[in-house]
Amino acid sequence: MDVRIILVEPKNDENIGAVARVVKNFGFSDLCLVNPTAIGTKAFHVASHAHDVLTAAKVMGSVDEAIANSAVIVGSTARHGISVNEHLRMPYLSPRDLKTKVEGKDGVVSLLFGREDTGLLNEELIRCDLVVYIPTSTIYSVMNLSHAVAILLYELSAVDSTPIGLQLATVENKERLFMHLKTVLEDIGYKEHKKGKTLIMLRRILGRAELTAREVQTLRGVLRKVEWNLKQVENQDVKVQSRDEE
Amino acid sequence: MDVRIILVEPKNDENIGAVARVVKNFGFSDLCLVNPTAIGTKAFHVASHAHDVLTAAKVMGSVDEAIANSAVIVGSTARHGISVNEHLRMPYLSPRDLKTKVEGKDGVVSLLFGREDTGLLNEELIRCDLVVYIPTSTIYSVMNLSHAVAILLYELSAVDSTPIGLQLATVENKERLFMHLKTVLEDIGYKEHKKGKTLIMLRRILGRAELTAREVQTLRGVLRKVEWNLKQVENQDVKVQSRDEE
Repeated sequence: MDVRIILVEPKNDENIGAVARVVKNFGFSDLCLVNPTAIGTKAFHVASHAHDVLTAAKVMGSVDEAIANSAVIVGSTARHGISVNEHLRMPYLSPRDLKTKVEGKDGVVSLLFGREDTGLLNEELIRCDLVVYIPTSTIYSVMNLSHAVAILLYELSAVDSTPIGLQLATVENKERLFMHLKTVLEDIGYKEHKKGKTLIMLRRILGRAELTAREVQTLRGVLRKVEWNLKQVENQDVKVQSRDEE
Repeated sequence: MDVRIILVEPKNDENIGAVARVVKNFGFSDLCLVNPTAIGTKAFHVASHAHDVLTAAKVMGSVDEAIANSAVIVGSTARHGISVNEHLRMPYLSPRDLKTKVEGKDGVVSLLFGREDTGLLNEELIRCDLVVYIPTSTIYSVMNLSHAVAILLYELSAVDSTPIGLQLATVENKERLFMHLKTVLEDIGYKEHKKGKTLIMLRRILGRAELTAREVQTLRGVLRKVEWNLKQVENQDVKVQSRDEE
């Protein structure tokens, strides 16, 4: 899926710069500007390390030109329809629905974003195959242009979020840890009638924490060190005792 | 779940204004600023209709003060850990994982966002219960501060996205539509051996479109009008024929 970001008549060049930045953040590059305001140094400043995206942005004279070759045209709106009788903004999709709808398909998905003040015109929304609405507060639903772009690109982004090399501890690993905790409780003379309950609590706490194999290893290292020190104290006690006995 | 947004030493007051706006967009209000830059008119301009959130933002002298009474402290980072040996940024959560982790819980969830250039200091990240990382391109992973806030608040927002009154058409409704389409194909003399296949195609197209009850009703209205017009043509033909016979 190729995503094209189309800003229709953006009036504030800082917004254009901010959009260029977020386009690059999510690994996209196809930015089109329909009759934009002049792009000044402020826009480049806001674009930060996305100068290249801003420089490569295609400036076009009409929405028709911008959506050429698109397989799907998506219109973003800050006002959703409220009646099924109104076809212009109803049914509308959430950003997540949109992802489900278009992911894995071939072709260009064009995302149309309207003017900062008036959004997309009705005749522009009519051209769209799908209408997307970001669920916002009824008290203040109009988002900053670049924020709306950020949220849609976040949803549509193909950047993998799976942590690298994150291996959760196996049940065997964790059982060894729990046995270890039990031994330590015994070593410190923890009250017998409380032991079972406390061990269950420790299981629950560590269960919720979803320990990695590495974390179990380090925790057991800490417990071993505790045991070793307890042993030293014990030996000393024995020594002190035997000295006393001498 | 109450969400508190904490900006640690933000250096650009326009970013503070942009954050105030998105805080209000997603129905939140608890904004804390730790040692922020002076908030000028530009910040209020960018905040747009979220002047109230910006004015009510609590300015504090330390992270400790800002996170007081929090049940969960979440640190946002633009760099995730790459080895399980590093505990500072590993394991890390995606914004969606974070939502799953905290939703439905009681208490204040504090979201910590660091400086625009250097992010959160290690000693600040250490204080966090959870680390969240927005999956971004390896080519340019550092997001604008207000964009990062926007994406986390979008995920954590409790604003309902269910379209109002959107009733999908029932199977009976749709069957009537398909029967109607079949009749029209017959009326226009569509080739018999193609009819079955085309009707299946129409079922597939309309199936994918997930029609509402209202849309089925309007489509059937269109078909009735087509039939009525076809009937008129037929009657005229009969009239023309009978006139010829006179």
